[in-house]
Amino acid sequence: MRRELDLTVYLVLDPDLCGGIDGMCRVTESALEGGVTLVQLRAPQWKKRQWVDAARALLPLCRCANVPLLINDQVDVALAVDADGVHVGQQDLPAAEARRLLGPSRIVGLSASNAAQLAAVDAGVVDYVGVGPVYPTGTKPDASPVIGLAGFGELMRQKTLPAVAIGGIGPANAAAVYAAGADGIAVVSAICAAADPRAAAAALRALSHVSATPSASES
Amino acid sequence: MRRELDLTVYLVLDPDLCGGIDGMCRVTESALEGGVTLVQLRAPQWKKRQWVDAARALLPLCRCANVPLLINDQVDVALAVDADGVHVGQQDLPAAEARRLLGPSRIVGLSASNAAQLAAVDAGVVDYVGVGPVYPTGTKPDASPVIGLAGFGELMRQKTLPAVAIGGIGPANAAAVYAAGADGIAVVSAICAAADPRAAAAALRALSHVSATPSASES
Repeated sequence: MRRELDLTVYLVLDPDLCGGIDGMCRVTESALEGGVTLVQLRAPQWKKRQWVDAARALLPLCRCANVPLLINDQVDVALAVDADGVHVGQQDLPAAEARRLLGPSRIVGLSASNAAQLAAVDAGVVDYVGVGPVYPTGTKPDASPVIGLAGFGELMRQKTLPAVAIGGIGPANAAAVYAAGADGIAVVSAICAAADPRAAAAALRALSHVSATPSASES
Repeated sequence: MRRELDLTVYLVLDPDLCGGIDGMCRVTESALEGGVTLVQLRAPQWKKRQWVDAARALLPLCRCANVPLLINDQVDVALAVDADGVHVGQQDLPAAEARRLLGPSRIVGLSASNAAQLAAVDAGVVDYVGVGPVYPTGTKPDASPVIGLAGFGELMRQKTLPAVAIGGIGPANAAAVYAAGADGIAVVSAICAAADPRAAAAALRALSHVSATPSASES
């Protein structure tokens, strides 16, 4: 029913850190080479015409790498450009409305910052949850209170859907976040502000294996 | 193909002037009694959940009066609440995309602030144009340069679609704006900030007749 979803290294594009649409494209192309598995466009200060222009520039890059491009909040933009889905927050369009507008085959992600929000997620509507902020973040001024790694681990034991961790995650703490039960990490500055986004993405992706529990059934 | 459209007195709701959703409902109910012919929800600072809540509160009032409710900019909100259409600006979702997403029967309005923008309007896509600001306005910080009444009259001679004037319009200048060729006037503070929105709407509506050219074929 739903698109294949790999949350392992989830790049959230920030227009300021990337330097506008051209910068976003450069960062994305490089990060895709480095192995990011999902890309989200998030530009809350932008007018929709800019969202459309950016999404139309990013889509061919993501399609070429067979990586979905999600649109933050703006379901109409996602529909207009035929993006692969959306990520909505608790104050955005209700996830059920987003699902209804987008149909069954696109991806719908939902932010959850505490146990009550996580418990309220409808697994029939939502494909994954974004849980955080795990650590303090400078890229989302209206972020919820910091959860911390222990709190994040608690939420991971409660989850019924794939979960991506967000908020202040980078090479120094990624392995711990994966180990706490995250199916993936969402990063902004760790890739957008990196001197080499390809290397930054590859390094984060490598950390996803570090924490993997060895299994006798796998080589 | 399109919904019936009467631009005569077009109320644009401002959440601050009205005092939130409850205030918007009170202003709208009163203004509908006074004879407004179209209502638009515009709250650029709001999250979409607030848009949805406000639109769902306003829709029964507008439906009861058989007056369309339009949503500014947020096509996804319009779709989610099944509003009667949208109004988009030059930096919002392209009108053709809005039309495609909304289908043929909903209303799509487009802002135009100069001759080039007016000439570029696709009458196959757009139902009406919003032209302004005719006068200085305090309710839209990012408004285009003021056109003035003479400039507005020039644009009215160029129009190929119904046009509603916007920007600083109130009881003192409404008759002149109608006389300059407007099919209607869009007002914010003239109704939202009025002590008696019903009386304010009725007074504006009466001014639409003052400027009408007497016709032998009408009583």
